[in-house]
Amino acid sequence: MKEIEVIRIKEDVQLNNPVLIVGLPGVGHVGKLVAEHLVEELEAEKLLEIYSHHFPPQVLVDENSEIQLVNNEMFVCHTEKHDIVALIGDHQSSSTEGHYKLCTLYLDLAMEFGIERIYTLGGFPTGQLTYSDEVLGAVNNIELVEELKEYGVNFKENEPGGGIVGASGLLLGLCKFKNIDAACLMGLTSGYLVDPKSAQSLLKVICKIFNIDIDVGPLEERAKEMEKIVARLKEVEQQQKGMPEVSPVKDDDLRYIG
Amino acid sequence: MKEIEVIRIKEDVQLNNPVLIVGLPGVGHVGKLVAEHLVEELEAEKLLEIYSHHFPPQVLVDENSEIQLVNNEMFVCHTEKHDIVALIGDHQSSSTEGHYKLCTLYLDLAMEFGIERIYTLGGFPTGQLTYSDEVLGAVNNIELVEELKEYGVNFKENEPGGGIVGASGLLLGLCKFKNIDAACLMGLTSGYLVDPKSAQSLLKVICKIFNIDIDVGPLEERAKEMEKIVARLKEVEQQQKGMPEVSPVKDDDLRYIG
Amino acid sequence: MKEIEVIRIKEDVQLNNPVLIVGLPGVGHVGKLVAEHLVEELEAEKLLEIYSHHFPPQVLVDENSEIQLVNNEMFVCHTEKHDIVALIGDHQSSSTEGHYKLCTLYLDLAMEFGIERIYTLGGFPTGQLTYSDEVLGAVNNIELVEELKEYGVNFKENEPGGGIVGASGLLLGLCKFKNIDAACLMGLTSGYLVDPKSAQSLLKVICKIFNIDIDVGPLEERAKEMEKIVARLKEVEQQQKGMPEVSPVKDDDLRYIG
Amino acid sequence: MKEIEVIRIKEDVQLNNPVLIVGLPGVGHVGKLVAEHLVEELEAEKLLEIYSHHFPPQVLVDENSEIQLVNNEMFVCHTEKHDIVALIGDHQSSSTEGHYKLCTLYLDLAMEFGIERIYTLGGFPTGQLTYSDEVLGAVNNIELVEELKEYGVNFKENEPGGGIVGASGLLLGLCKFKNIDAACLMGLTSGYLVDPKSAQSLLKVICKIFNIDIDVGPLEERAKEMEKIVARLKEVEQQQKGMPEVSPVKDDDLRYIG
Repeated sequence: MKEIEVIRIKEDVQLNNPVLIVGLPGVGHVGKLVAEHLVEELEAEKLLEIYSHHFPPQVLVDENSEIQLVNNEMFVCHTEKHDIVALIGDHQSSSTEGHYKLCTLYLDLAMEFGIERIYTLGGFPTGQLTYSDEVLGAVNNIELVEELKEYGVNFKENEPGGGIVGASGLLLGLCKFKNIDAACLMGLTSGYLVDPKSAQSLLKVICKIFNIDIDVGPLEERAKEMEKIVARLKEVEQQQKGMPEVSPVKDDDLRYIG
Repeated sequence: MKEIEVIRIKEDVQLNNPVLIVGLPGVGHVGKLVAEHLVEELEAEKLLEIYSHHFPPQVLVDENSEIQLVNNEMFVCHTEKHDIVALIGDHQSSSTEGHYKLCTLYLDLAMEFGIERIYTLGGFPTGQLTYSDEVLGAVNNIELVEELKEYGVNFKENEPGGGIVGASGLLLGLCKFKNIDAACLMGLTSGYLVDPKSAQSLLKVICKIFNIDIDVGPLEERAKEMEKIVARLKEVEQQQKGMPEVSPVKDDDLRYIG
Repeated sequence: MKEIEVIRIKEDVQLNNPVLIVGLPGVGHVGKLVAEHLVEELEAEKLLEIYSHHFPPQVLVDENSEIQLVNNEMFVCHTEKHDIVALIGDHQSSSTEGHYKLCTLYLDLAMEFGIERIYTLGGFPTGQLTYSDEVLGAVNNIELVEELKEYGVNFKENEPGGGIVGASGLLLGLCKFKNIDAACLMGLTSGYLVDPKSAQSLLKVICKIFNIDIDVGPLEERAKEMEKIVARLKEVEQQQKGMPEVSPVKDDDLRYIG
Repeated sequence: MKEIEVIRIKEDVQLNNPVLIVGLPGVGHVGKLVAEHLVEELEAEKLLEIYSHHFPPQVLVDENSEIQLVNNEMFVCHTEKHDIVALIGDHQSSSTEGHYKLCTLYLDLAMEFGIERIYTLGGFPTGQLTYSDEVLGAVNNIELVEELKEYGVNFKENEPGGGIVGASGLLLGLCKFKNIDAACLMGLTSGYLVDPKSAQSLLKVICKIFNIDIDVGPLEERAKEMEKIVARLKEVEQQQKGMPEVSPVKDDDLRYIG
């Protein structure tokens, strides 16, 4: 196996107004949940699989006890307005160098497929267990802001304050070298737990953008399970609030950014 | 020395229905114990040694105060039905990239030797100190399941839940590119200690598969030593159980998998 | 994108007695604050941008929600005596190898621009929250010591005791292969916080060296904000001093240096 | 600068029965102390300097505030029987791969200089603060054992139990590919502190091997300073011994080696 190996499942791909949606594991797995949901609900077709030395040396075991080498995959979902190419996967790169190499590959594939726009999906960690039905955006081209606001995306100065780390951010950054419009859409989430509820909020925005209708049933079910856990965590939090906190200096004051 | 160096001890290797067994260090060292036991009991012949930048920069010291550079080695054990090639070693790769490169090499060598099937041996961590005479399996080809069940291997949906990390899993995954049937056989073990008792369970299965008879005496002796330690650990555990546990949320609920 | 990518903004750069000032993130962000302040106040012109696999896979988000891939940049500030090339950036390399490769690139660019001298700017961590208006120096050519003392730089035997880690030190070290005079100028700082006050001390020295006059207003404002935090931290420290310390052995005694 | 850069200080080196002594930083800095002492006392001549991406990105500052890029260096000390080539340095490689690459280089240089034997010097960590005037050995050729015993070196089965990590061990291991006799000589030391006293014990053995006489004055002075610290540490240890220890299981029982 080479450093990065692309296995084509479908040859001679012809796409109609193609757009790339990226939903890899990350904060609250919000992006992953949304993109995988799209792939399932829109009966997507697999285009290719990507294997790499930059993924962990790991296989996953399925319900038949068959193993699958961890990878990233691209699917295509046909909708009326656009063919949506969805990039999903088990892991992001485990090395810095790998992040750059894999994202460069993703953009090369995007160019090959004639992708016109990229949406990377992720979570925005609030540190709060309280649910907020909000989707935050960042773009690589200021002209996208007004358009995305119409679909319900919020924009806040310099947010996220720590920037965007990983494929969701890097893909936008590397578009500098490829000239593709790209936006990162982030569902607000605690950052502590897998968050199917935040994924629903983000999915709503995606549906508006693509003018499609998707059953959110499976996400809702998972959301209900997580809510029970959140409720229990909040109880614990409440109990701990009884105890006095010592430091008069808040973490924020000390954020080490020039 | 190159990045990976293969030193051939025996040239022009001709093998009879060869099968590869992999027993490298890992959970409970179960796989390592079994494979090394086979090598000793079946009077195996060394085929080659593998040295690599991806192993730790370390030498081991033997009973004569002579050092050996850490490596992986392949031996051949002749049995009636099969020639068993055993891959054993001091370490697995210490880098992600090295895991992929070394496992790719192991498969190249397997192809060269005409290997028809691969069994990687490992431990399945239960987190419990209670002994369980059970061997769990995962395969890269669903057709192996029924066959292995006959030898006493259990199969459980999606288990291990976190997948299989390291050479035991990766070798199965990389077989995708080589078209060799492969199974991972895991002895159940606490995950905290070297476990010669679990190794005995796994060895029993191996003996059935290859229709061979092996003296388990040395493993039994080591098992008895470990049992004393386990007994003491259980006492400690028992004492600690007296103390109340605070968190009402179990770790499992929070497992961060999308 | 290649491992290191240099994007030239201005071609055919002709410089007058050029000097390189390096102010990358580091201890107290002292060097970064000073160099960025120079770039702003002297209306510097951007020469080039450097992107690399050795920076984190991250984008920053600006006030318009537009992202910028993290990078290092070179600007030129024209002053009467010298053209000051300023190297600033969001991050230093996140790998050891990257430090060497990027610093080698910086020196190659310095040679190309005909740089006659290099000043790397940094912070010297004292571990004390008390402010000290002092700038410490280290050089790669002993002849610079007397000259820099005239500008108010202090020199202390074997200080910093742990050497200088990162680009500020490495650039001086690598000059060995390029034959450029270079000095590292360090503002004394606690090491715990961003320190605009120490940056002011260092800026004063820089102004003397280049015989320029710079408005320190913006740094002063930031310094006032930080002073409030420092005051609160000192209170906490004072409270903790009430408690007895146990170990009769000081950390310094154990510093593990041959 | 290339990945590894060798700067020759002395060309056309002709050596008489040359032997390589390696004293890089490590356990108790015992090896480093001895080799640097030899270089000083025998008025050694510098042969070459080695710089590498695999050393930390760091410079050290000398008593004149001049910086030196961290490196490894080879010196030659002329004695009656042998020319001793001494390899000393500020750091060992900070990466696994770098350890292999640098040690391979050291052996290539040893071959070039016609080295007949290699002694790597190090410390053997006992975990005890009690001084023991003992030097332990390990060899890459069993024939060296009897010879070294005559010089006072002890040999113990399978010791050190965890093998020898770093250049001291790896150099012996890599001799496999070069056919040079090599021994690792280790002064017993606590493992917690720089240990000039253990270095004296090791130096005594070296003097016997090479039939030379060396002033141990400077080492003795440093040893006295350290003894004060050790005395204080022992006091603390004594105080803590008053407290009961909980776990009935000793660390040793759990050592995770197959």
